[in-house]
Amino acid sequence: MRRSVADKARKLVKTTTSNRSLSSNSASHRPSPLPRFPLSPPPASSSNSSPLSQFALRFLTSLPSPSSDSMAPPPSSSLTVDTLNPKVLKCEYAVRGEIVTLAQQLQQELLENPGSHPFHEILYCNIGNPQSLGQQPITFFREVLALCDHPAILDKSETQGLFSADAIERAWQILDQIPGRATGAYSHSQGIKGLRDTIAAGIEARDGFPADPNDIFLTDGASPAVHMMMQLLTRSEEDGILCPIPQYPLYSASIALHGGTLVPYYLNEATGWGLEIPELKKQLEAAKSKGITVRSLVVINPGNPTGQVLAEDNQRGIVEFCKEEGLVLLADEVYQENIYVPDKKFHSFKKISRTMGYGDKDISLVSFQSVSKGYYGECGKRGGYMEVTGFSPEIREQIYKVASVNLCSNISGQILASLVMSPPKVGDESYESYSAEKDGILSSLSRRAKTLEDAFNSLEGITCNKAEGAMYLFPSIHLPQKAIKAAEAAKTAPDAFYCRRLLNATGIVVVPGSGFGQVPGTWHFRCTILPQEDKIPAVVSRLTDFHKGFMDEFRN
Amino acid sequence: MRRSVADKARKLVKTTTSNRSLSSNSASHRPSPLPRFPLSPPPASSSNSSPLSQFALRFLTSLPSPSSDSMAPPPSSSLTVDTLNPKVLKCEYAVRGEIVTLAQQLQQELLENPGSHPFHEILYCNIGNPQSLGQQPITFFREVLALCDHPAILDKSETQGLFSADAIERAWQILDQIPGRATGAYSHSQGIKGLRDTIAAGIEARDGFPADPNDIFLTDGASPAVHMMMQLLTRSEEDGILCPIPQYPLYSASIALHGGTLVPYYLNEATGWGLEIPELKKQLEAAKSKGITVRSLVVINPGNPTGQVLAEDNQRGIVEFCKEEGLVLLADEVYQENIYVPDKKFHSFKKISRTMGYGDKDISLVSFQSVSKGYYGECGKRGGYMEVTGFSPEIREQIYKVASVNLCSNISGQILASLVMSPPKVGDESYESYSAEKDGILSSLSRRAKTLEDAFNSLEGITCNKAEGAMYLFPSIHLPQKAIKAAEAAKTAPDAFYCRRLLNATGIVVVPGSGFGQVPGTWHFRCTILPQEDKIPAVVSRLTDFHKGFMDEFRN
Repeated sequence: MRRSVADKARKLVKTTTSNRSLSSNSASHRPSPLPRFPLSPPPASSSNSSPLSQFALRFLTSLPSPSSDSMAPPPSSSLTVDTLNPKVLKCEYAVRGEIVTLAQQLQQELLENPGSHPFHEILYCNIGNPQSLGQQPITFFREVLALCDHPAILDKSETQGLFSADAIERAWQILDQIPGRATGAYSHSQGIKGLRDTIAAGIEARDGFPADPNDIFLTDGASPAVHMMMQLLTRSEEDGILCPIPQYPLYSASIALHGGTLVPYYLNEATGWGLEIPELKKQLEAAKSKGITVRSLVVINPGNPTGQVLAEDNQRGIVEFCKEEGLVLLADEVYQENIYVPDKKFHSFKKISRTMGYGDKDISLVSFQSVSKGYYGECGKRGGYMEVTGFSPEIREQIYKVASVNLCSNISGQILASLVMSPPKVGDESYESYSAEKDGILSSLSRRAKTLEDAFNSLEGITCNKAEGAMYLFPSIHLPQKAIKAAEAAKTAPDAFYCRRLLNATGIVVVPGSGFGQVPGTWHFRCTILPQEDKIPAVVSRLTDFHKGFMDEFRN
Repeated sequence: MRRSVADKARKLVKTTTSNRSLSSNSASHRPSPLPRFPLSPPPASSSNSSPLSQFALRFLTSLPSPSSDSMAPPPSSSLTVDTLNPKVLKCEYAVRGEIVTLAQQLQQELLENPGSHPFHEILYCNIGNPQSLGQQPITFFREVLALCDHPAILDKSETQGLFSADAIERAWQILDQIPGRATGAYSHSQGIKGLRDTIAAGIEARDGFPADPNDIFLTDGASPAVHMMMQLLTRSEEDGILCPIPQYPLYSASIALHGGTLVPYYLNEATGWGLEIPELKKQLEAAKSKGITVRSLVVINPGNPTGQVLAEDNQRGIVEFCKEEGLVLLADEVYQENIYVPDKKFHSFKKISRTMGYGDKDISLVSFQSVSKGYYGECGKRGGYMEVTGFSPEIREQIYKVASVNLCSNISGQILASLVMSPPKVGDESYESYSAEKDGILSSLSRRAKTLEDAFNSLEGITCNKAEGAMYLFPSIHLPQKAIKAAEAAKTAPDAFYCRRLLNATGIVVVPGSGFGQVPGTWHFRCTILPQEDKIPAVVSRLTDFHKGFMDEFRN
């Protein structure tokens, strides 16, 4: 049906507009040999400032028209790579970078020409996007969302047959918390108060310490919350943020966009990606000596891309360090439900600091949570929140003001954030099916993590730490010198060279370690544990075959 | 049920944590006489930098604990108003500012103590949030959203009885456009390709000119799209953005947050908020002479807060001006469906520029659209898109990169954006009910606009232009000198003084003109036309009574 609308519209265009505007101005009639955006692979921040290249570019992207002076350079105000905000240019985001663009291209080629590659599908292991790889949503959550989207069916008899009784009840409760039951209205800029009450109660139940709904800011996933904090903290490049290396590149991207300085601290791969306090102190002092005011410490627990789960003792040391140095602790706790080893447990930094006797005035702490991760994996819903404690009323007011400029986060995401913090309980009609779905997903993820970890460790030159939590493995590849030279010749980083070869040979998409940061001279890649379990044997055998062939080709 | 969870969690806390941590650190046990956030009214960017006030503040907000040195000033890195990013401090957003905070406080007082004010409800006319005031969502849109949220019911027999056939069909079509039918997966960072195809076809049908799905970037409402463009365009405060005065304060807020300079151009109130090209030229030259590089022109059409609909001729002049000066035209077209006068019609700037023979290489143009406005008013869904034309592939790549850092916009919002650009058509099962809902809303809005306009114009000292479109009236109040003096004494702007008195007397919330900008020495306020039609007579009589009393009190 859509196709026919588009076709009709196109026919309409052909009969109502002049030939000239169609031939000279229409995007769809551009004869350019240059592919339309996205380019693949993108040129690395190339600048086209000379009059000649400007002209060439303009010539390639559109035909000259009688009304334009296409030879003249653009006015200084117009937007070119040279007049773009340089912070944007500096920002990088490898999770959706060059390798992914290549993967999309290969996918298109497979669609148009099946059999054109030595694999029949692209397997996206580049991103923590469980449902894109076949994970099913939790039924109860989706029932409640659907009912809140279309409350008109709530009291229809057919609804009883389609939805569980507790989903219907929960939908009514949520609607009653929304002024006028209007799920289509902007909410309070921190989110609907009743949903924040539910989330605060969920945090209290998790931590055993009070949580205040006024400390909760609901956001469209965790990313906008991280941006908001970076925006508040960054005055200039003399402001620094301590970030783990390897890190989730949202942090480096956000720091670059806000014009601050990333102060790296290295996780110790030899001790299972240990976070060591002396390293924090060393890097803080080094930054200070360069005139950097370090404002904040980012900790990702469970780790991304590294998968480690911090021990309580370690967390206490981190809290003490932030308190002593007056740093805002930005705690990325979005993988709090993803723990795969029996000897580790998730503890929020708020709980740890409260057990140490530290309250609001002792430490400024922001905890990020998201509906995209956990066993729910609802990435497309863009729900999440930050719990903001230990700031003055004046700063809280500023955070509220920035939140208010975007009015509010999406209401479905808000509802889902309340649901993941308050799922069905023993005795609820959905409890058993909910528990079965949840346990099925988490135990399968745990098995997949172990199988992939073992597979990596069985390969020549690869060592891989355990994924204690989160959704990723971050194996280290000891690349032969010959491969490093070949990468140099191809003007790419050795790990990107490996990942590109892997993709071209197997259709498996992973992200080069250079996108996350790594100790110079070491090479890694991030691979999610998310392919469905029945696909894991094929993934392992494709990876193994490729790796053997690669090593045979490049072994010193 | 929520309440009992919270209570249980609180009981758990009381039995498992020490008295000390409860009494000295818990947010809920803080004995502070200072209200918890949000403050009401907020102190205007007050600074508490002296050691004494720092101490006083800390003392008021939390009890000292043995483990903290509350007398010592905080380390220079910790976050105070003095160490906050000054751009954040500078940003203002009146639509959710001081008056709204007061309204929320009054609402709470009414709830706790009915009869405590001379009105029984707060009427939020401060913001274009139709469903918060009782407007019902379009049934077809909600049916499709609910089905996409919970596709498991699509082939159940009960579903046929609950949902219209074309909603079921549309949900299937949309699911087929999503890889793996996974509405819970992150999508392409520009949005799901099939939905962008639908939107492009809708734009083609609207304009009669081709639209390219690769030009569409789906966003969480229009606000993040505006921020993204400001981020790309702004290098320093020497970069300027031409904005109408009065303007929608998202623009001033976003420019402040990104550190640029707002270059104002004044709309001519005497000619129905006319946008005059000589004024644009004058302000551009004035900015240039101050060393400002003007990068872009913002046009809001239909106007917010001013409600005018631009004539085609005028739009041509604007396009020509942008082309000549090399400015990026940022066209806020979110009210494209809200036109209330028969002699005016919405024309997109893309259509206008294409009819002038200008194509991609002649003019850089961004059109913003949102699901929050129109007859649909789905503010809580946070859906929208920008159509980006006339940029080089390199710049497009940078826009894509910035979009990719936040992964994607929410899928429900994406789906809804496709629906508003491709609603039911003649012959579809829902067409008649859809049309009746749509026409009912738009014709009622038109009547409400006229009634309120007439009411304002009947008041002493008030003149009000017609709302040809959008959702607002922006009457001018000729305040008596005595009122201006009283405002000065109360240390507030005269229009804010009037609005505060109006709220306290009637419960009606409007936004002072100073939040939007106005010719110095003139005073206005913005009032939405959104109260339900049966409430309009009461609004008019409350407004009229208040205004008469106000004028009697302050008449010179």
